[in-house]
Amino acid sequence: MGDVVNLELHLAQQGSDSPTRQRRRQNRASERQRKGPGSAKYLNLTNAMTRSTVLSEDALEAVHRASLTILEEIGMDIILPEARERMRAAGADVTPGTDRVRFDRGLIMEMIASAPSDFTMYARNPLRNVEIGGNNLVFAQVASAPFVTDRQGGRRAGNQEDFRKLVKLAQCYDVIHTTGGYPVEPVDLHASVRHLDCLADLVRLTDKMFHVYPLDRQRTIDGIEIARIARGITMEQMEREPSVFTNINTSSPLRLDEPMLQGIIEMSSRNQVVVVTPFTLAGATAPVTIAGALAQQNAEALCGIAFTQMVRKGAPVMYGGFTSNVDMRTGVPAFGTPEYMQAVIAGGQLARRYRIPYRSSNTSASNALDAQAAYESAFSLWALTQGGGNFIMHAAGWSEGGLTASFEKFILDVDMLQMVAEFLTPLDTSTDALALDAIREEGPGGHYFVTPHTLVRCETAFYSPILSDRRNFEAWSEAGRPTTDDHANLVYQEKLNAYERPPLSAAIDEELDTFVARRKEEISAPTIDT
Amino acid sequence: MGDVVNLELHLAQQGSDSPTRQRRRQNRASERQRKGPGSAKYLNLTNAMTRSTVLSEDALEAVHRASLTILEEIGMDIILPEARERMRAAGADVTPGTDRVRFDRGLIMEMIASAPSDFTMYARNPLRNVEIGGNNLVFAQVASAPFVTDRQGGRRAGNQEDFRKLVKLAQCYDVIHTTGGYPVEPVDLHASVRHLDCLADLVRLTDKMFHVYPLDRQRTIDGIEIARIARGITMEQMEREPSVFTNINTSSPLRLDEPMLQGIIEMSSRNQVVVVTPFTLAGATAPVTIAGALAQQNAEALCGIAFTQMVRKGAPVMYGGFTSNVDMRTGVPAFGTPEYMQAVIAGGQLARRYRIPYRSSNTSASNALDAQAAYESAFSLWALTQGGGNFIMHAAGWSEGGLTASFEKFILDVDMLQMVAEFLTPLDTSTDALALDAIREEGPGGHYFVTPHTLVRCETAFYSPILSDRRNFEAWSEAGRPTTDDHANLVYQEKLNAYERPPLSAAIDEELDTFVARRKEEISAPTIDT
Repeated sequence: MGDVVNLELHLAQQGSDSPTRQRRRQNRASERQRKGPGSAKYLNLTNAMTRSTVLSEDALEAVHRASLTILEEIGMDIILPEARERMRAAGADVTPGTDRVRFDRGLIMEMIASAPSDFTMYARNPLRNVEIGGNNLVFAQVASAPFVTDRQGGRRAGNQEDFRKLVKLAQCYDVIHTTGGYPVEPVDLHASVRHLDCLADLVRLTDKMFHVYPLDRQRTIDGIEIARIARGITMEQMEREPSVFTNINTSSPLRLDEPMLQGIIEMSSRNQVVVVTPFTLAGATAPVTIAGALAQQNAEALCGIAFTQMVRKGAPVMYGGFTSNVDMRTGVPAFGTPEYMQAVIAGGQLARRYRIPYRSSNTSASNALDAQAAYESAFSLWALTQGGGNFIMHAAGWSEGGLTASFEKFILDVDMLQMVAEFLTPLDTSTDALALDAIREEGPGGHYFVTPHTLVRCETAFYSPILSDRRNFEAWSEAGRPTTDDHANLVYQEKLNAYERPPLSAAIDEELDTFVARRKEEISAPTIDT
Repeated sequence: MGDVVNLELHLAQQGSDSPTRQRRRQNRASERQRKGPGSAKYLNLTNAMTRSTVLSEDALEAVHRASLTILEEIGMDIILPEARERMRAAGADVTPGTDRVRFDRGLIMEMIASAPSDFTMYARNPLRNVEIGGNNLVFAQVASAPFVTDRQGGRRAGNQEDFRKLVKLAQCYDVIHTTGGYPVEPVDLHASVRHLDCLADLVRLTDKMFHVYPLDRQRTIDGIEIARIARGITMEQMEREPSVFTNINTSSPLRLDEPMLQGIIEMSSRNQVVVVTPFTLAGATAPVTIAGALAQQNAEALCGIAFTQMVRKGAPVMYGGFTSNVDMRTGVPAFGTPEYMQAVIAGGQLARRYRIPYRSSNTSASNALDAQAAYESAFSLWALTQGGGNFIMHAAGWSEGGLTASFEKFILDVDMLQMVAEFLTPLDTSTDALALDAIREEGPGGHYFVTPHTLVRCETAFYSPILSDRRNFEAWSEAGRPTTDDHANLVYQEKLNAYERPPLSAAIDEELDTFVARRKEEISAPTIDT
């Protein structure tokens, strides 16, 4: 019939208190014990859901073959002589006097075959190590937004204060497994030394694995050294235990720029993690058809992945998929669209074909924390979960197509990520969970509010959302009709107030200080001279 | 790196007009031709996506067996002597002097085996016929809300004017394949004759298939007669061509009430469509564990489905899944939760086990059109799509856990349903779509804004959303920073203004008038007498 029931009314008629309130009275103390810091529910997430597909086996092979044809016949522009030389030495066809490099399909397949199908990324706190590949699902915070926003301050240029706040928030939630780069670009720090201050903050304010930007050769090396210092290990150990990652974007179509190539060389040669992500926007930097954009994405990804293996066989690398479409009316990139969903799932099929871990993203183009922000992100999460994403960048806080890191969107995303994690938790179908005894006890016409079967489970039976407002309309109205945006604004401030800095040994802290000071001095020196 | 690119800037630097604008100048006339009324893109939706599972084969059997044990050992309360008598005649064990009926597992399995795995539901406009079962995906509008809301009028009791507006909106979108009942309960119409006015409106204001409420025996029969009149056919033909449907909710736990049982008897005996939907809320009307709630859901669904087959072998019936959890703090039903997602997917596994079409719902508990409304609905759509839902009730407009039909939520849902439909559209991987020639032509470093490959496709390449605001931040700010809610409010009013009543023959219109007038007179007569 109407599928509508007023349970509160029912509850009132039964004269019964809510099960939580009853239960709460019983064991408030034990509850406090159980919910202390160190809850690790969302660490080591896995996704055993059967992978969805949008490409038939034949179509998958067609995209695969098209991308190999692109690399063989059209080639890529490789904007770094050293990289071209390494490619030539590996067997690629470099056109003399140009940046153009073409790759035999056999060479590409031979190179990518040595990339590992799974590996561990090591954090300074071993509890925060993350497994990459297989069924593992790892979420990284928003990265690289030029702007930042919250309700109080509005949209503003990135700065160190907001950078630090966002990094602290990343530390507060276990479902954020790693940071993802600078959540916002702190432009009040001088660009020449920004990486030193930012990376030192990432080490000190979190105990999670972090990202180093491939800005140029020396800054990449600085980042690797800071990761080594943070873990307090030798470079030999670090080469066995990848402890920092970088994301390499191609300049689509079909180009790899100098800093990106330098980044691959410095990172892969030290066995650190490289994510190769083509920037293929259908209708702009790639063909307007999703299949064409995927063929180009795959060509660019395979080229970058193959190059990591030319630098060092077995170096850890991920296949990045970012294909979306532009809005044809405004020319603005669109995200979380049906086309994005198809591309994300197809990208997963391609990555699995090559047995390489798959990086995807939680995207939205909305300017506000409105329904659009939520459905675009939810559709992204749908696709990357069903498509088998392993490493999800921009998982929380990404707003306005990546132009803005939003404090409120960060909380919204954390809530949605936790819901995805709960959805992926295996369903308990034990005899006890099947509840035949409880059903027998209640029989027809009863209710389960305060049965023993309910009372022993009511605190933990269901996910308790951060933001969802489940008061009835009257109570919600009395409270001033707050929206998700209102709740998120309060939650992020409360969470920030409760932030606790993770412990760091005095020796590492000092070594970090010394290194940053020395490098700042070295970087300033030539500036004074010229 | 940052995954951020300013495409508009790029576009401006290229000095190029947007592809849409270029294209528009070329063929504005042919565009008008193409986009006339009669666009049928979202009719006859199918979902070929591989079904997801949350139950292993063993777990599925465990739930199945538990539910048969419930029916065999505990039984159901069947609150109608005629129904108990029919069940007894079919072989069930009726405890004399009580409502309790127990069912041998062999009897249940024998009965449900005769339910058809797919069938057609006939509308008065043959274009609106819907196929139920298999890969078919059918969306029905919100139903049965006691309240209605929009931005202008706020939340108010249901009434005929809003009822009619919502029904007109259902007619406006092809992705709304059927109405689902009364989108809102028009309490300004007297309850004794409300069904006559409402059903006559559903016939006249739409040409889609509709729902009749099992309020009592006579009103169900009235609804069936109105459906027959609307189609202009004989009752014999209507018995071959199911033309109206009803949703039967159990009174969980384990009870079927009198009007519901009467509804099954009147509908199934005439071969009209019955949806059996247990109202199993984990922690309230069902065990707090999802597995237990599913076992109970399955027992109740199988009982109702078996009864349709006791009434008439082969009568069309659907397996309804509605299991969700209550919020343990407030006692309010929660929707679009991780637990709901698991239950929806498990319900699909159960329905497929019995080869019976699966009914699910697009749910949300939010009081506002905020991010919560969107993520709860998006998560519902995720689960019901991956779980293989065939017939989706409350697909558009359901708000506040079903208490309120929202005009703005209706538009939001229509947009999301269309996105799901686009996502399910097979990806074109033809040679032309793989775009090797276009990629060759552009080569490294080019762009695809105005290539011939883009220009011939730019009008139709991507889904054009109803609500998503893709202006850049500056343009959006100048426009007053509208949210999805703002857009939805404008769109529903515009759409309503553009509504056109579907043609109906004068003869049918007159027969409908005559029938309604006669029945109103008959219904009033005893009222005057008593």
